[in-house]
Amino acid sequence: MNAMQQYTIGVDFGTLSGRAVVVRVADGAEVGASVHEYRHGVIDRALPDGGPSLPPDWALQDPEDYRDVLRIAVPGAVEAAGVDPAQVIGIATDFTACTVLPALADGTPLCELGDLAGRPHAYPKLWKHHAAQPQADRITDLAHRRGEPWIRRYGGRISSEWEFAKALQLLEEDPDTYARTERWIEAADWIVWQLCGKETRNACTAGYKGIYQDGSYPDKEYLGDLNPDFADFADTRLSHAIAPLGGRAGGLCARAAQWTGLPPGIAVAVGNVDAHVTAPAAQAIAPGQMLAVMGTSTCHVMNGATLAEVPGICGVVDGGILAGLYGYEAGQSGVGDIFAWFVDHAVPPEVHEQARAAGRSVHEILSEQAAAQPAGAHGLVALDWLSGNRSVLVDHHLSGVIAGLTLATRPDEIYRALIEATAFGTRAIVEAFDDAGVPVTEFVVAGGLKRNTLVMQIYADVLRRPISVATSDQAPALGSAIHAAVAAGAYPDVAAAAAAMGKVERDVYRPEPANSDVYDALYAEYMLLHDYFGRGADKALHRLRRIRNEALAR
Amino acid sequence: MNAMQQYTIGVDFGTLSGRAVVVRVADGAEVGASVHEYRHGVIDRALPDGGPSLPPDWALQDPEDYRDVLRIAVPGAVEAAGVDPAQVIGIATDFTACTVLPALADGTPLCELGDLAGRPHAYPKLWKHHAAQPQADRITDLAHRRGEPWIRRYGGRISSEWEFAKALQLLEEDPDTYARTERWIEAADWIVWQLCGKETRNACTAGYKGIYQDGSYPDKEYLGDLNPDFADFADTRLSHAIAPLGGRAGGLCARAAQWTGLPPGIAVAVGNVDAHVTAPAAQAIAPGQMLAVMGTSTCHVMNGATLAEVPGICGVVDGGILAGLYGYEAGQSGVGDIFAWFVDHAVPPEVHEQARAAGRSVHEILSEQAAAQPAGAHGLVALDWLSGNRSVLVDHHLSGVIAGLTLATRPDEIYRALIEATAFGTRAIVEAFDDAGVPVTEFVVAGGLKRNTLVMQIYADVLRRPISVATSDQAPALGSAIHAAVAAGAYPDVAAAAAAMGKVERDVYRPEPANSDVYDALYAEYMLLHDYFGRGADKALHRLRRIRNEALAR
Repeated sequence: MNAMQQYTIGVDFGTLSGRAVVVRVADGAEVGASVHEYRHGVIDRALPDGGPSLPPDWALQDPEDYRDVLRIAVPGAVEAAGVDPAQVIGIATDFTACTVLPALADGTPLCELGDLAGRPHAYPKLWKHHAAQPQADRITDLAHRRGEPWIRRYGGRISSEWEFAKALQLLEEDPDTYARTERWIEAADWIVWQLCGKETRNACTAGYKGIYQDGSYPDKEYLGDLNPDFADFADTRLSHAIAPLGGRAGGLCARAAQWTGLPPGIAVAVGNVDAHVTAPAAQAIAPGQMLAVMGTSTCHVMNGATLAEVPGICGVVDGGILAGLYGYEAGQSGVGDIFAWFVDHAVPPEVHEQARAAGRSVHEILSEQAAAQPAGAHGLVALDWLSGNRSVLVDHHLSGVIAGLTLATRPDEIYRALIEATAFGTRAIVEAFDDAGVPVTEFVVAGGLKRNTLVMQIYADVLRRPISVATSDQAPALGSAIHAAVAAGAYPDVAAAAAAMGKVERDVYRPEPANSDVYDALYAEYMLLHDYFGRGADKALHRLRRIRNEALAR
Repeated sequence: MNAMQQYTIGVDFGTLSGRAVVVRVADGAEVGASVHEYRHGVIDRALPDGGPSLPPDWALQDPEDYRDVLRIAVPGAVEAAGVDPAQVIGIATDFTACTVLPALADGTPLCELGDLAGRPHAYPKLWKHHAAQPQADRITDLAHRRGEPWIRRYGGRISSEWEFAKALQLLEEDPDTYARTERWIEAADWIVWQLCGKETRNACTAGYKGIYQDGSYPDKEYLGDLNPDFADFADTRLSHAIAPLGGRAGGLCARAAQWTGLPPGIAVAVGNVDAHVTAPAAQAIAPGQMLAVMGTSTCHVMNGATLAEVPGICGVVDGGILAGLYGYEAGQSGVGDIFAWFVDHAVPPEVHEQARAAGRSVHEILSEQAAAQPAGAHGLVALDWLSGNRSVLVDHHLSGVIAGLTLATRPDEIYRALIEATAFGTRAIVEAFDDAGVPVTEFVVAGGLKRNTLVMQIYADVLRRPISVATSDQAPALGSAIHAAVAAGAYPDVAAAAAAMGKVERDVYRPEPANSDVYDALYAEYMLLHDYFGRGADKALHRLRRIRNEALAR
């Protein structure tokens, strides 16, 4: 069987659905795909089947939805591709992160134990579960107080989205369920466990979400200082050998072979994260090539040749994107989410009617109207924090602000201001890298928002640099398929596989200097508000959130 | 003819329409009313009939629309009342202010001269014309520099809405039209001129809008310092005897008798302003009774026994509301306007559909949903400056801010936050009076918003005091009718007429202490943002407006 007849499967587990893509090993051609929408989606109001309702900021998922992707989307993709399953030599997965769950030692999720099905803490906590902020604050504060060296690898802040904050919340809010937790595992690794029947831990999530640095997790003393019952957390619930990205986790087990219809024993790659796995798919793996995966949220990943401490980034991990380089990650917790919120909840009927009449989406109509505005003509500036701020403030209890509203303000103006706000947020991240001596030399976009030409042009204008675009519309799945090809031994390493299978179009959008000038002025206003609301002593947005939570608790 | 058979007519000229009400002199019974919508409404985009388009912040009107109210609404009200016109003993008018126009010495508006019809500056500038801010800033600054004593009567700032700022803008932007201006006259006085055929100047607008204090206008030297060509402005275009409120301006002239169908020669009262004229209609004329006329904007008027300087109020005028007392005025330039903007431009289709299905207005549906929220549960705070800030910042180049938005924020939550923002703005005004030694002892509401029970309850909670409500739904027109009765000699003075003809229900809404506690916390946040954006060195909202105007001018 020559390479033109060999295929791998990449499976991308997103926030609302999972997508499987069949990819030709020789050239990265995507020959078939299938999507499965999670039956339970994001569980953020109440547990399924009339279970208890959830407090604000919670976001859970049901692991059975993940298995359904293997059962439905994988065979669906193979069928769509018209490929003989025998031609498939490997499978790899990527996942949202940090999405993390408590499990037994055999990988059984605690929420699947009958007596725990009604416990919110027994479920996987989705990346955007933001209710562990108090724990995250203590984790950060204590690390600084004790001078833990690893804290500087994470821009000085540990996020409430990550493994330790979410685990500490579990311990402190539901100690019984914590006591039943034998493994605290990323969904990225749990799904690989389902595929090959054995536990692995990938270098990417261990490093970025699990504070695994220089060969170890935070030590017992530090953890015990957070909470005496937390002292053995890493030793008992995390500890495991760390596997490199593109490595072979094992062979496809019989049960998973039955689910997927694929040959048992084919290579299953080590787990990975949706954004990081996309870098080779977009050929953005050289130092300085920043990849922004722009969808509901944006994740920025970039390799660097050297280790630097960049304030406010999510993390830097040796081999976190590609073995042999330092992988940097930053992010914006709300981007497409914000635009969708606006369209769903703040756009009047006449715009919906225009869209219906034109047979187009409301996003398209608003984008078209917004594109007709001269830059700056709306007189608005917004803070893009409706889902908190991941970088460079690492504060999920911030919230959004819109300033400059007048009675003449129209929906397409606010829409444009929200797009610009996310672009300003990206610029703050790019400048943080530049200032820290890890210069960004190219900006590459993947993810669903790459198709919005208004968004792309605004980003080019705000960043004052050209935007390259990943060609594949299923770049994370393609990236997984690249890793599967490496795990299956078809290429010596990820770089070689990326050169053969990745795809990118360079400099598709170029900055318009007159617009960039206006955006320099608006960015200055953005940064003033950014620092006023996000830094310094006056935490008005935190107080508003506290007032809200107290009101809801009454 | 006894008093039970005598009637007066009050005509209230609003922003979008004029309303005539026939009132029984004996007891204030409103026996007939009619409304006429202005054909041109607010002219804020382009002059009528394909004339030139207008820059941002402009707002003009067409004086023929005012005459149409006399021709259509007045006879309509008489007909609706089923009253013999011979029973009508007087007519009085009240107007938005400062709405001001350039006219010839005979009262002809300049925009009605053929060669000036295409000149924006030849039209009446509506109260909410906000394009004279640079002139207003200079007027204020120079007054302070020269130590003009009158500046302290206006809270330390002269508004861009007022006579001098608008006139100086006319002079500096269109000197030809200024040269043709023989009279610069409030619409409140111009309409009386149309009714009785002779020019008068009422004490209310002269004082509040015309900087007429202690018997004179700002002097030649001061005006010449603003602009040498402006030195003679008051002497040549304003100067005229000032008439007391409730006084008789003259008898109804033949032309106006023909328009209205009323007997020629009946009393025409001196002009008045919509808010001020309402005080007797709501029996809110004793010192400390603050009347808030709440509609598209809110005007606060209150009599005081003593003269004090209250920072940021619109003005204090001897006899400005009632002869013999010091009349204080403050205001909020956008209130109902803001709620209407939100409903028109930011409410999604499903709420409109709910309203349609329930046969109710979108305002009612949103109010009902908002009323179900616990106070503070939305986590939002807004600045109610979408139409600028009249009191206590006197800055029409401010704009609105909404802080605390999350992806969970829903339309009824923003709606409630906007209502609360206007209540906080009112509280800032009440506190300014209290702090200046002119205590507010009762809060009385008139105007369309008195019918929104959610708005009223929020105001009671935010102010932590009961709210009294003017009974009449046409209180300004009733107030005018009260003045007409005095002008016609049916009562010795306005206080006596108010006691007989005015109507109010005391303490209709009482504060809910638990809500008031939450609002104390939110008000503290409001004031922090208020001072950050509205005071001090960082004028971010001004810069955003400048960026907008530059973008639109390119």
